[in-house]
Amino acid sequence: MSLVVVGSIAYDGVETPHGRVDRMLGGACTYISLAASYFTPVKIVGVVGRDFAPEDHALLADRGIDTAGLETAEGLTFFWRGEYFENMNQRRTLQTDLNVFADFDPKLPEHYRDQPYLLLGNIQPKLQQRVRAQMTAPRLVGGDTMNLWIDIAHEDLLATIRHWDVLVINDEEAHMLSGETSVYKAARKIIELGPHTVIIKRGGDGAMLFRRDRYFVAPAFPLESVHDPTGAGDSFAGGFFGYLAGIGYDPAGESDPAELNRAVVYGSVMGSFCCERFGVDRFRTLTRKEIDERFQAFQRFTRF
Amino acid sequence: MSLVVVGSIAYDGVETPHGRVDRMLGGACTYISLAASYFTPVKIVGVVGRDFAPEDHALLADRGIDTAGLETAEGLTFFWRGEYFENMNQRRTLQTDLNVFADFDPKLPEHYRDQPYLLLGNIQPKLQQRVRAQMTAPRLVGGDTMNLWIDIAHEDLLATIRHWDVLVINDEEAHMLSGETSVYKAARKIIELGPHTVIIKRGGDGAMLFRRDRYFVAPAFPLESVHDPTGAGDSFAGGFFGYLAGIGYDPAGESDPAELNRAVVYGSVMGSFCCERFGVDRFRTLTRKEIDERFQAFQRFTRF
Repeated sequence: MSLVVVGSIAYDGVETPHGRVDRMLGGACTYISLAASYFTPVKIVGVVGRDFAPEDHALLADRGIDTAGLETAEGLTFFWRGEYFENMNQRRTLQTDLNVFADFDPKLPEHYRDQPYLLLGNIQPKLQQRVRAQMTAPRLVGGDTMNLWIDIAHEDLLATIRHWDVLVINDEEAHMLSGETSVYKAARKIIELGPHTVIIKRGGDGAMLFRRDRYFVAPAFPLESVHDPTGAGDSFAGGFFGYLAGIGYDPAGESDPAELNRAVVYGSVMGSFCCERFGVDRFRTLTRKEIDERFQAFQRFTRF
Repeated sequence: MSLVVVGSIAYDGVETPHGRVDRMLGGACTYISLAASYFTPVKIVGVVGRDFAPEDHALLADRGIDTAGLETAEGLTFFWRGEYFENMNQRRTLQTDLNVFADFDPKLPEHYRDQPYLLLGNIQPKLQQRVRAQMTAPRLVGGDTMNLWIDIAHEDLLATIRHWDVLVINDEEAHMLSGETSVYKAARKIIELGPHTVIIKRGGDGAMLFRRDRYFVAPAFPLESVHDPTGAGDSFAGGFFGYLAGIGYDPAGESDPAELNRAVVYGSVMGSFCCERFGVDRFRTLTRKEIDERFQAFQRFTRF
């Protein structure tokens, strides 16, 4: 049961209070697919430039990720540079060079199209629509977005998420999209926009899942120090969707609804691992055993 | 098994985005004792002025609170006035008239002294010491403090909490007291100062319990709108300690360690009810049944 993932593949420059890296592998698609690959087969759609390093391609391949949909175009790979402040929940973008990403026109290889799970990483809403349109009949479609699209492509975004099952956004975006300051009211308004399930990521404060009839609240996994939060939200989404794909979750079928809660916790676990090192470094050594141990730790410190 | 509570009894003036009340019953001892009274018999120690209204005294008495230790002095009751900003986690003090509280010298009635549970609300550390010294051999001693004492009475405070079992503070105070920005590191440092159990209240983000060998994280109960957060932290402490006193918790004995987690959740439940109305108003109608229903709701939305 493969999960198809679309999104940016990038090089990032990041500065945090713990250090600085001028250029490292990044991008939503990269983080999502690495995190999801611990739970389910993953197929990615994206574009990189001629500068994309063979060892970065190898990292994805080594995790069993299908890169048939990874296009290499003339030019340079998308580049993003930003810095985080002492409060790691806030960051500032210093540089964004779209490069080959500016003309990205995602084309799904034939063997991607009938897969059951689709996760649309944060890209222009119209591109997300175009990817969705190439899938035959996905069982579960989810996606992320960002403040930029809520701001400059509002109508496109509304038309896009109307057909999603799951929207995964952070609390600030939820407020922007709904106009509500209470996260509960925001989630209810967003459910009216289409998705039956809304996940609100709250960084170091955990995550919440909302549906019409119920909700679930999980704290963040307690990290003594966060080295680099870049990609944590995407790793969360990858863990969440990857877990559901791995168990063959069917929203229309008999799946245990508590599986969605477990997926949120697996998402939190993957986000927490991501923060422990710069960029994708933690995924170079991470094992499924470590993931499951952290999931079990989560149960221990939240049960009463 | 009575819980002895000491702290301020006050009149408050409060303005929040939801409204304004110029004068209403307040004070740490009031909120703590009202919240705890749903779980265990409570005996309070405090001072009020000649202006203290019979109906406010009656509210405490109606909840079965023993007011033998409530002294009425010449002068006016402690008065505090403050306002909350849109983000209800922050407030500004506009007026503090200590009045009769300036010369408060707590004296415990004879029948208070051999009670097993003692909760020292936020007052000057030396006064907390003096109350502790009047108790024969309490089984569990806990207390709260505030940024002011961490700042201007640091040594007194350290000498005071050294002999406590439980310290209940908010995250900002934990950072001030420990010099650590990570709440986990802060808790570990505070445990070195004496208390075997540290509870860190995080307002709308929930609460955490730390001990040497384990920790517990609870989200806040989801409120659609917070009318007035005044007293929520004290109501939390009252719920936490009241629950433990009600079940006869014995830190040296055979008590189920998970009871501490349940106490944190009961604390959160009491804090959440407190925020639903201005001042102590919610406690005028609240029932134990409503409390237990909210505790059960907590289990539903946190289990996975």
